Amino acid sequence: MTYCVAIRLNAGLVMLADTRTNAGVDNISRYRKLHCWEVPGERAIAMMSAGNLSITQGIITRLDKQIEKSRDNPDRETILNADSMFRVAQIVGDTMREMQEQHREGMEMQGASFDATVLVGGQRKGGQCRLFLIYSAGNFIEATPDTPFFQIGEHKYGKPILDRVITPETPLEKATLAACVSMDSTLRSNLSVGMPLDLAVIKADEYCFFKQRRIEKDDEDFTALSEAWSKALNSAFHDLPHLNL
Amino acid sequence: MTYCVAIRLNAGLVMLADTRTNAGVDNISRYRKLHCWEVPGERAIAMMSAGNLSITQGIITRLDKQIEKSRDNPDRETILNADSMFRVAQIVGDTMREMQEQHREGMEMQGASFDATVLVGGQRKGGQCRLFLIYSAGNFIEATPDTPFFQIGEHKYGKPILDRVITPETPLEKATLAACVSMDSTLRSNLSVGMPLDLAVIKADEYCFFKQRRIEKDDEDFTALSEAWSKALNSAFHDLPHLNL
Repeated sequence: MTYCVAIRLNAGLVMLADTRTNAGVDNISRYRKLHCWEVPGERAIAMMSAGNLSITQGIITRLDKQIEKSRDNPDRETILNADSMFRVAQIVGDTMREMQEQHREGMEMQGASFDATVLVGGQRKGGQCRLFLIYSAGNFIEATPDTPFFQIGEHKYGKPILDRVITPETPLEKATLAACVSMDSTLRSNLSVGMPLDLAVIKADEYCFFKQRRIEKDDEDFTALSEAWSKALNSAFHDLPHLNL
Repeated sequence: MTYCVAIRLNAGLVMLADTRTNAGVDNISRYRKLHCWEVPGERAIAMMSAGNLSITQGIITRLDKQIEKSRDNPDRETILNADSMFRVAQIVGDTMREMQEQHREGMEMQGASFDATVLVGGQRKGGQCRLFLIYSAGNFIEATPDTPFFQIGEHKYGKPILDRVITPETPLEKATLAACVSMDSTLRSNLSVGMPLDLAVIKADEYCFFKQRRIEKDDEDFTALSEAWSKALNSAFHDLPHLNL
């Protein structure tokens, strides 16, 4: 499985993904699920994916190929020159549909799941910072102030903390912490989600990546966060008032 | 769906269930999923179920019918006279298998899911306090010091808090709080789990129910717990040290 969480705030965008893929518990691998594209000062786009790896890798390859081809033919539309983030989501959705059409029949015959979901977020100069969730059929929805975050993959373990602390007004640093705490809860409770992690942060109206880093298994900051949260949660629990339940 | 959690401690047993069932989001009902049997001073047994309601209701009805019939024929084995909790689990497993055999073919033809799981725990005089998880096939596993709790139904939201605070040494009152916090997280994040709740607590070596109560939607203690936990969680989160993530 996978766990990816993306949070769209007034202050920008936080995206965090794990790297574990598995075909059964006896076939575990590590793949990057967070991919970033940037034209510094003009746009920054980040994408995360869950589900069938051949589909999601195929999407990334096609998007990159389109960008490569557009070097010789600048009229060709790509996610790096599309005139809105909405159009970027449409391009990703169309690519999803192409991949599904190409492989669905063969995979159906094998009984393999071809489900895939993609989160794509970012900002281009002149537009807002936006976040989209793209389904297997290529259709998509957008994060709004009512629902400022999306999760894909093993989303249940890490949802309660996000439900409680995330609002559009949450600062980027706090949202990054919340994404990490949400990931930490998932890592502890589900073996199909694993380190290392990939983090990307975009500050609103800067059109570049504010942060883009891999968090390794022995990362001191993440370990400190994990321990601090564990301690805080335990003492919060043990300090609960006596209740006549 | 459903959420039920059962915790087996050195100090006894805590069992907490919600009451929501649904066949689609537009067909929501309320059913008791926690059932208790008691021979005060001799044994106390509690059972919770998730999955196909016709199967799980059928199991309860059959177990009760066996008990009724054994009044005239005391040699007849029932969960109230079986000579061990292990044997109680076997009887429940056998009843599960009978229900499955009776209805599987018909339900398969309808494409309905006949999956069901049951948690059964308790203690009889002369034995230990034990907790079992019974699968659709009638086979079962037992809670051990390594894994002192079982969850059935929508278990993921409420697992992280249990993973962090429950050990066999946890006192009954703390474990009851943990079960309620775990349920509260699930209620907040998943509409298919709903109030009221049913709680049963058995103290080790007392062979009767220490607590057995329904927690209604407007229960003051549960509301106070929910608010206290929300506040504690928020302040624990906001007090996390600044980390260079």
